[in-house]
Amino acid sequence: MKIDNVAYRSVWVDPQDGWTVRIFDQTRLPWSIDVLRLSTADEVAHAIRTMQVRGAPLIGAVAAYGLALALREDASDTAMEREAAMLAETRPTAINLRWAIGRMLARLRGVAPHSRVQAAYDEAAAICDEDVAQNEAIGRNGLSLLSEIAARRGNRVDVLTHCNAGWIATVDWGTALAPIYMAHDQGIDVHVWVDETRPRNQGALLTAWELGRHGVPHTVIADNAGGHLMQHGKVDAVIVGTDRVTRQGDVANKIGTYLKALAAHDNGVPFWVALPSTTIDWTIGDGVREIEIEERNADEVGAITGPLVGPGDVDREGEVRTIRLVPPGSRAANPAFDVTPARLVSGLITERGVCAASEAGLLSLFPERRQTAA
Amino acid sequence: MKIDNVAYRSVWVDPQDGWTVRIFDQTRLPWSIDVLRLSTADEVAHAIRTMQVRGAPLIGAVAAYGLALALREDASDTAMEREAAMLAETRPTAINLRWAIGRMLARLRGVAPHSRVQAAYDEAAAICDEDVAQNEAIGRNGLSLLSEIAARRGNRVDVLTHCNAGWIATVDWGTALAPIYMAHDQGIDVHVWVDETRPRNQGALLTAWELGRHGVPHTVIADNAGGHLMQHGKVDAVIVGTDRVTRQGDVANKIGTYLKALAAHDNGVPFWVALPSTTIDWTIGDGVREIEIEERNADEVGAITGPLVGPGDVDREGEVRTIRLVPPGSRAANPAFDVTPARLVSGLITERGVCAASEAGLLSLFPERRQTAA
Repeated sequence: MKIDNVAYRSVWVDPQDGWTVRIFDQTRLPWSIDVLRLSTADEVAHAIRTMQVRGAPLIGAVAAYGLALALREDASDTAMEREAAMLAETRPTAINLRWAIGRMLARLRGVAPHSRVQAAYDEAAAICDEDVAQNEAIGRNGLSLLSEIAARRGNRVDVLTHCNAGWIATVDWGTALAPIYMAHDQGIDVHVWVDETRPRNQGALLTAWELGRHGVPHTVIADNAGGHLMQHGKVDAVIVGTDRVTRQGDVANKIGTYLKALAAHDNGVPFWVALPSTTIDWTIGDGVREIEIEERNADEVGAITGPLVGPGDVDREGEVRTIRLVPPGSRAANPAFDVTPARLVSGLITERGVCAASEAGLLSLFPERRQTAA
Repeated sequence: MKIDNVAYRSVWVDPQDGWTVRIFDQTRLPWSIDVLRLSTADEVAHAIRTMQVRGAPLIGAVAAYGLALALREDASDTAMEREAAMLAETRPTAINLRWAIGRMLARLRGVAPHSRVQAAYDEAAAICDEDVAQNEAIGRNGLSLLSEIAARRGNRVDVLTHCNAGWIATVDWGTALAPIYMAHDQGIDVHVWVDETRPRNQGALLTAWELGRHGVPHTVIADNAGGHLMQHGKVDAVIVGTDRVTRQGDVANKIGTYLKALAAHDNGVPFWVALPSTTIDWTIGDGVREIEIEERNADEVGAITGPLVGPGDVDREGEVRTIRLVPPGSRAANPAFDVTPARLVSGLITERGVCAASEAGLLSLFPERRQTAA
């Protein structure tokens, strides 16, 4: 997607600078657009651990390049296995991370050490290209849904999204935002209600930033506002991403997603979930009962960071600082995800098409899973 | 209620200091407990306009004392009517404010100017005492509901609340928090999930502060978290206040209340609304269609204020500053309230008892309204 008319991916290699890897420092966005230069596997691991790079698909792609960087220093079997294990452990719960590292090893184990660096760069590039192609397919499938609404509403569509499932969380296009970018690029008058997404504010920070830089009209709202907007006909559809979809179509996503699904259901607003099929966990049925929800640090609720604005001394304007949000002595809790039951999901938008949020729906698009699911 | 074992009301008169009026500066809470000394009607008006004093019942009580202060300077008919009109216009949408001023005038117009100051102080004190008595009755009626739960759960109750309907929004006790304070004072092990309540954070700031200072165990959560907690059986009941209840039991309250009502309904959790009967608008039926929702300044979404915490220079630690929350160029919207349809409300807790959220339910407690409602 574009940042002020220049096209970018979220990760790329610079052949002019020793084939080093480039990412945006997502801990600094949107207040500062800093491109990081990663030249070793340790630098990649650090970037993943500190969430300078985030978003399950993007983490996998960057880790794959991390293994390529490792092999430049030592392409032996021992070093390769050791560095792969190190990279795979940088974020313990990221499924895509281990999938990407596993795929790299599967490709590289059969390659002679002296050919491994080139093979690793090629495989990482393939992972990136496939991610882009998959998201583009998700975008096309979602675009059909938005086009139908636009046709009814005089070329206008208002979409609500929660958290960030945009291009900055993937290699390009994003998942939930891919149909929105395509609609915008096709000339549909699409406007996005962006949930702030407390407590980490990925909506207000990252989704608003990427939509704004690409030129997509949007309005940031408190997470509390979506139900009211739906009651008053101001939302045509909700589209969100997901961290895990169960076999029966239950959707784990950023905390608060379930509340928006309830409001959409109560107001007859379609609630769609966009995902690459790698996000489907065929081993789990009941998401509410079976998916364990990560409890993150309460400090994410109790304090928040951003650039200072007036009133105050002018010389510090813009300085990024942290303020306290809860009184001393008050505890906070921070469940990071929730599960939206399949009954509240209007459809799953995958790279193969759109299906009902149910085992039958998923198997209609992924018939090769019939045996696994049985 | 108590602040660290000392009992307070939210407004009081100091006879040792010229019968001036005292309030807490709510724009400074919880970071600083500043008691303001109001000695003129203009100072009262300023405190109301700048939201140093907030909460519909409390505003009415403070404005009533404002008229008493005005009469000390000039007790003539002309001055009384002028100052009453000035005070009534300090917050255009506050129903209680005009009710309190109207009551003061009704009492004072028949009193000779030389006796008006004493009569005004007495009437304002009566308004305060009646507010406290009404909230105490709401508390007792809500306490029965909490006691039933506690009896089933081995003396434990987990309540979720949204925004601030506590003692600091009234003269004492509060509405939604009154049953909670009574349960706590009676030795019930009550714990409160406190919704942060974006964008003005009245939950994280005021509700957490008052519960904490009175010693009630509580946990601040992002507004997004409540649905997940209910799915997992961690909430026994939701209790909220309200700005207006319609004849048919629809409930206007802080934005986001509707989402919690949906989640409570979806999980079989009782959703109760606590209110003095002055909050009932007998002239309106369908709240979603008929209640106009105030759109407040978008800056409330785009920026937030609190004390600086590290990392940073130690000398500025604790300094209250404002930081930006949305990227430059991104718009924000800020609807301040939403309407929860009566079908999602388990019951209305009033000073006369608990009733169903319906016209029949309300009329069963307020039979004198039959004619008005017909």
